[in-house]
Amino acid sequence: MSKLARFRNEDGLGLAADAGDGFRAVWWNDAAYPGDLPELIAAGIDLMDVIQQFRSAQPIDLDLVERLPPLPDPGKILCVGLNYLDHAAEGHFEVPSYPTIFGRFASSLIGDGAPIIRPAVSDHLDFEGELVAVIGLGGRHIPEEEALLHVAGYSIFNDASIRDYQFRTPQWTVGKNFDGTGAFGPWFVPAAALPPGAKGLRLQTRLNGAVVQDISTDDMIFDVARQISLLSEAMTLAPGDVIVTGTPAGVGFARTPPLWMKPGDVCEVELEGIGILSNPVQQEVARTAR
Amino acid sequence: MSKLARFRNEDGLGLAADAGDGFRAVWWNDAAYPGDLPELIAAGIDLMDVIQQFRSAQPIDLDLVERLPPLPDPGKILCVGLNYLDHAAEGHFEVPSYPTIFGRFASSLIGDGAPIIRPAVSDHLDFEGELVAVIGLGGRHIPEEEALLHVAGYSIFNDASIRDYQFRTPQWTVGKNFDGTGAFGPWFVPAAALPPGAKGLRLQTRLNGAVVQDISTDDMIFDVARQISLLSEAMTLAPGDVIVTGTPAGVGFARTPPLWMKPGDVCEVELEGIGILSNPVQQEVARTAR
Repeated sequence: MSKLARFRNEDGLGLAADAGDGFRAVWWNDAAYPGDLPELIAAGIDLMDVIQQFRSAQPIDLDLVERLPPLPDPGKILCVGLNYLDHAAEGHFEVPSYPTIFGRFASSLIGDGAPIIRPAVSDHLDFEGELVAVIGLGGRHIPEEEALLHVAGYSIFNDASIRDYQFRTPQWTVGKNFDGTGAFGPWFVPAAALPPGAKGLRLQTRLNGAVVQDISTDDMIFDVARQISLLSEAMTLAPGDVIVTGTPAGVGFARTPPLWMKPGDVCEVELEGIGILSNPVQQEVARTAR
Repeated sequence: MSKLARFRNEDGLGLAADAGDGFRAVWWNDAAYPGDLPELIAAGIDLMDVIQQFRSAQPIDLDLVERLPPLPDPGKILCVGLNYLDHAAEGHFEVPSYPTIFGRFASSLIGDGAPIIRPAVSDHLDFEGELVAVIGLGGRHIPEEEALLHVAGYSIFNDASIRDYQFRTPQWTVGKNFDGTGAFGPWFVPAAALPPGAKGLRLQTRLNGAVVQDISTDDMIFDVARQISLLSEAMTLAPGDVIVTGTPAGVGFARTPPLWMKPGDVCEVELEGIGILSNPVQQEVARTAR
């Protein structure tokens, strides 16, 4: 176990780590605070070293604090659609020869434990469990064989989608950017603590305890290295950019009848070697004040 | 004339204004510097007042400085596709009943005068002249009739597109996010200095002096107020978020034969009451070092 999580409680922003002997934490105003995770990633700090330094920090019960996204405001959140053969088939999409990419904005992000919001305007709220790759070293025109050197680490995403909005026009952007739908975290695992490219990890999504998605990351059509190489052909990737690597079969809209998430549900995404991202579902309470 | 532009020269970051008597400037370290434009917008400062305060500032030749995007790092860049009837028709798209939205990331932005880059991997480089609306007051579930109160001001965009990448998969994101393709600026005009919703303004794109797009902003399918209202149904809009409101007919890919921009070309987008955004086209010189 080598992993980090951002959190907040009444003492402010903190960083927690698991160095193999339970969760320990330091806060932003502690002398031992190494800096916030986005800063550490941007500075290219060895995060395995950072985690080791938590061995003398104080134990913490993460259930008692607000877990935050590992990166609260990535410069880019690039999401890969249709990246598992079985999911492309269930949605009746052609198997892509190039990755299908859509963008999320940080305004849609929530942390582990925070509610996924079913909006007032739609009940077509679907889950999508996914592996996240976080860029460490930026670059352009990154060759596939060097691409994994550009990954700082990995995390978990529930790319919750408002399907009727997603498919209302040729572009999926609105259905993928509702407030309270981008669940991210809680753990950030340095690349060095996982197999290269986070391959061979079991990815499982559970809705109210029932398994709804279950696959190995080996089954990606475009693996992490290839995604980085292809994306960097077009754009400069920067430290802290986030690639949400696509979801396997089992999503709710492709079922008969469709399986939508509803208030009171709990959706968990588990990724072997990383942890569990768990979010309850809540109805949007009222029209937010302007 | 009431407008602002961000720029940089050897003295650092500056803000220029035209209060009706030519361009005047203050720099980040001047006592009279009001703050950077994104900060002024976020603070809800009256930008017409800010512009008046430039009357005693020193004259500047903006041709001699680097003009920067009015907002260098918007939280969201929401682009509207197919928002003029004539453009939807030329691309053989259905007339939309809901706006087609795609995302840009700030990594693609360049300022006025900076080169639009034709990438090594494609010569299908197209222009799209567009009006930009910048959010001032944030909000969610903004009623259409109040939406224009949420606009800080307007600017100009050339949403340059790599068409073969745009249409390679169901999602346009990659073809819309190449480095050096999102030309933005130079002028930011406060909403108070333009007609409500920036309606009735002539929008003209010229490639090497030849008019290639020419329309009134009145011809938008979804006007600025409606765009804000519909987008805020899904997501919280924040100060400094940018809405790129769509392009009219005349784009290069819809012509026979196609008209692609090539190195040495100059593309200008002129918006009545705002100004001219002018960018030369350059070939990507070499694979950027990692």
